[in-house]
Amino acid sequence: DKSKIGNTYSNRGMSLEDDLNLTNLYYLSNGIANIHKKPTPIQIVKVDYPKRSAAVIREAYFKQPSTTDYNGIYKEKYIDFEAKETNNKSSFPLQNFHSHQIKHMQSVIKHGGIAFVILKFSMYNEIYFLKASDILAFWDRQENGGKKSISKAEVEQVGILIKTSYPDFVPYLKCIDELYQL
Amino acid sequence: DKSKIGNTYSNRGMSLEDDLNLTNLYYLSNGIANIHKKPTPIQIVKVDYPKRSAAVIREAYFKQPSTTDYNGIYKEKYIDFEAKETNNKSSFPLQNFHSHQIKHMQSVIKHGGIAFVILKFSMYNEIYFLKASDILAFWDRQENGGKKSISKAEVEQVGILIKTSYPDFVPYLKCIDELYQL
Ligand SMILES: [Mg+2]
Ligand SMILES: [Mg+2]
Repeated sequence: DKSKIGNTYSNRGMSLEDDLNLTNLYYLSNGIANIHKKPTPIQIVKVDYPKRSAAVIREAYFKQPSTTDYNGIYKEKYIDFEAKETNNKSSFPLQNFHSHQIKHMQSVIKHGGIAFVILKFSMYNEIYFLKASDILAFWDRQENGGKKSISKAEVEQVGILIKTSYPDFVPYLKCIDELYQL
Repeated sequence: DKSKIGNTYSNRGMSLEDDLNLTNLYYLSNGIANIHKKPTPIQIVKVDYPKRSAAVIREAYFKQPSTTDYNGIYKEKYIDFEAKETNNKSSFPLQNFHSHQIKHMQSVIKHGGIAFVILKFSMYNEIYFLKASDILAFWDRQENGGKKSISKAEVEQVGILIKTSYPDFVPYLKCIDELYQL
């Protein structure tokens, strides 16, 4: 696979989700946090049960998730976040959020959890930590007739750039420690 | 459907999972808690993308879940539980737990979350709230050569019988309020 030759960590062609899953595995195995990706919800229509082998799903459809991508626990706090990746260079379009994700983030904040978004600008290989409260403010601006996106400059201003590393890949818990003084 | 004729709430042929999902919907819509069933993890092998209609999964397999059934947030606390139903009359076999579920409950407790099991004895239509720490003690007893099950008498002794009701069906948060003084 030519695309993998000579890749350094910072440009090895892995998705944000892959990196977050590795990060969470590192956190879990080292007893730092217990945070998991929620499985993609599927509507199963038809299943075959062949003799002496595993059940095979033969017809199923992707369902819209009703919450965010990841949740779990860290230092006694409920953690909940959505991961987003964009190829846009100058802004992040708010239409990438579904209204149920926005409602879910509002609900998590209301119940006292830590909610945020991890946003990757793939073209720059930059990953930002954005508090859900900031995302909600941009969402409200749009609802009130404002811009339908968050500019990259705004992301840089309110977000924290996550410096990728090894072996914790996308060490987003450092941002939580800093922002919430845990 | 004859089996549904004349069913009262207490015997209307719904699964524990159905009841818990209705309970969680009630909690969510009333701003009481935000707790969800995690989707069943699926290994997708083949997907068709028909023109002008939704993607169809044509080959997929059930994967072993790596955690428990439900998690979320209630009164700022991380909540995590497994729901189990049995047709046994006198005991609950511990083989119904997978070792990764046991490890997950240990980890949740360690990180300061509230972990428990909701266990239904279908033959009696009785639902019990059992703290994960009690389940872990029974698990340890087995590991040390003891019984491979929890007797119903033991469940009655350490668990809390959840009185089903309407509209909150299986009001398990009442047990949490009581046990953890929330
Ligand atoms: Mg996402
Ligand atoms: Mg279960």
